[in-house]
Amino acid sequence: MEYVKAETHNGISSIEFYHPLSNSLPAKMLEQLAREIHFAGTHAESKVIILKSAGEKSFCAGASFDELTQIKTESEGYRFFSGFAHVINAMRKCPKIIIARVHGRAVGGGVGLAAAADYAIATVHADIKLSELSVGIGPFVVGPAVERKIGTAAFSALSIDAAMWRNSEWAKRKGLFAEVHENVENMDESIERLAHFLSHSNPEAMAEMKKMLWKDTEHWDSLLNERAAISGRLVLSSFTKSAIEKFKSKT
Amino acid sequence: MEYVKAETHNGISSIEFYHPLSNSLPAKMLEQLAREIHFAGTHAESKVIILKSAGEKSFCAGASFDELTQIKTESEGYRFFSGFAHVINAMRKCPKIIIARVHGRAVGGGVGLAAAADYAIATVHADIKLSELSVGIGPFVVGPAVERKIGTAAFSALSIDAAMWRNSEWAKRKGLFAEVHENVENMDESIERLAHFLSHSNPEAMAEMKKMLWKDTEHWDSLLNERAAISGRLVLSSFTKSAIEKFKSKT
Amino acid sequence: MEYVKAETHNGISSIEFYHPLSNSLPAKMLEQLAREIHFAGTHAESKVIILKSAGEKSFCAGASFDELTQIKTESEGYRFFSGFAHVINAMRKCPKIIIARVHGRAVGGGVGLAAAADYAIATVHADIKLSELSVGIGPFVVGPAVERKIGTAAFSALSIDAAMWRNSEWAKRKGLFAEVHENVENMDESIERLAHFLSHSNPEAMAEMKKMLWKDTEHWDSLLNERAAISGRLVLSSFTKSAIEKFKSKT
Repeated sequence: MEYVKAETHNGISSIEFYHPLSNSLPAKMLEQLAREIHFAGTHAESKVIILKSAGEKSFCAGASFDELTQIKTESEGYRFFSGFAHVINAMRKCPKIIIARVHGRAVGGGVGLAAAADYAIATVHADIKLSELSVGIGPFVVGPAVERKIGTAAFSALSIDAAMWRNSEWAKRKGLFAEVHENVENMDESIERLAHFLSHSNPEAMAEMKKMLWKDTEHWDSLLNERAAISGRLVLSSFTKSAIEKFKSKT
Repeated sequence: MEYVKAETHNGISSIEFYHPLSNSLPAKMLEQLAREIHFAGTHAESKVIILKSAGEKSFCAGASFDELTQIKTESEGYRFFSGFAHVINAMRKCPKIIIARVHGRAVGGGVGLAAAADYAIATVHADIKLSELSVGIGPFVVGPAVERKIGTAAFSALSIDAAMWRNSEWAKRKGLFAEVHENVENMDESIERLAHFLSHSNPEAMAEMKKMLWKDTEHWDSLLNERAAISGRLVLSSFTKSAIEKFKSKT
Repeated sequence: MEYVKAETHNGISSIEFYHPLSNSLPAKMLEQLAREIHFAGTHAESKVIILKSAGEKSFCAGASFDELTQIKTESEGYRFFSGFAHVINAMRKCPKIIIARVHGRAVGGGVGLAAAADYAIATVHADIKLSELSVGIGPFVVGPAVERKIGTAAFSALSIDAAMWRNSEWAKRKGLFAEVHENVENMDESIERLAHFLSHSNPEAMAEMKKMLWKDTEHWDSLLNERAAISGRLVLSSFTKSAIEKFKSKT
């Protein structure tokens, strides 16, 4: 069954999530993720954080379709999408450097998690898609995090051409991934090297760097919630209902 | 003779312009372009807009040299350059997604049109140049649109090295073009696919996406006009007069 | 011995610096650099500026380690790091276009100099590193200049993975270098061509372009000094002391 778990060894905290449906994220897991990130951020023993998911295929399929289809009111919609807002804001405000380990495909909110990390290391299998418009909504909550990393042009392309996968090479060129490796072994070796280096670096310098890298995002606390309200309203449209039904009947 | 024409079929509006001199744009055509874009934006039947030009060589050579040479006062200069400001602002404020079809070379204002589109699809023949400094002025009016898409570094390089063409591959890498195709057929196929997808997508979601993608540009209404005043003043310099005379004697 | 020298011929000002330790920069040279840049900016005879260093290996190794190790108080630290702030602010406010000639490796503050130029032309040997975190501090003073050119994602990667060189190709792709050439001859040919073009261009247009390209950086006068205070405080940490001792014993 699904889980979010965290452990810290030698100054390196690993936060891992798993969901049987391509590591998609229901509200409860989003809440747990935000809490674990916040906790590792305040915990002195933790010097650097690795965010990863279990399994060998998808890194993260984004929002849970099962929960999306059950949204009946705007306030339920708002509540669901603000789950992603909380995770992204937790990553943003965490004074520790966060490394994302992206071993496979990322969609929607999954792209947002990779983008909100300070340093993302992926494999060639980490294709990405912002498919929100295909289901009648848009990448409103993850937008600021994704655009901050890949710029307005690439974010426009990715969010408008919502039916199209972009490969990991594209994601690296645009800045979403700092590194892309041929296989999981090489990715993990690189993560281990970087995490080791950071766990032995000056924590005060890293906390100042984190502030510098995330300057001018203080308004995201409210911005991402406003964005959650937009998604929460659009998700009630007939476009969304029929798109999700079509998708679920295919799988 | 030159024209601007618009038509809408199956939710897809095409706005096409043509001028015998490499699709350069005199004030009158800029006004027509701004009007057609505004109209398609308000028209319910139109779900997505394709901006294109006729012919098989240049996409757009920018400002009309014939009109530039006739500018005698700062206010005439301001009036001329604010024509580009109006087109870019119309594209920016249009609640529909705009796809630019860039089949060939783009210079100066032509680069601005491609940049102000939400998604630009080009062929390998779409080399670009911001040649303004070569004629004694600078890319002041189109600057904000171009910099928003390709970033400060690429915009600096393009505007400073004003005598040099950058090829379509460079333009894609920097984010001006979302796609570059080997030939016109492939470009048109991709445009058709994307336009079809968008014409069947949730208009409300696309209008919200448009707002999101163009956030923090509300000041462009005044900014681009201030920029038009700078160009309108510099265009009276002896540098401009002699550069344009030299250019016209060559062609 | 080390020097900073400037000369102007045919409208082209060259500012050259040299230090026997890989062109690293002590406080006195930073002061001279800021003064020469300011002077060329105000001098009517100078139309365009080339910033370069002597020797055939490093372009610039950044801060002088000899001086770093002698910093005993926060105010001494602040004074040292504000030297870089003054150079970057002089480049930013200079109304002339500045071309950086990057013939070899650049580290820390050296990356900052390349980034603060308006157009950087390099050779393939110009690998770069922001090694600050390796010595217990961070790229706080040069950060705004580097991030402005290469974006938040590349700046994050470069400053976090502080032990790792990025090659000149990476630096070009990310926008730090406008051009990368196979060898010094080709680089110098390209610099000569561009400098010649700019020295014959409209100075008023270039001054307006400079304002446009550096818009929204007026607060750097105070921001870079605040950043110098952060570095000046962190440099007193035991991390810095032991890292620099280790480094110096190796060389």
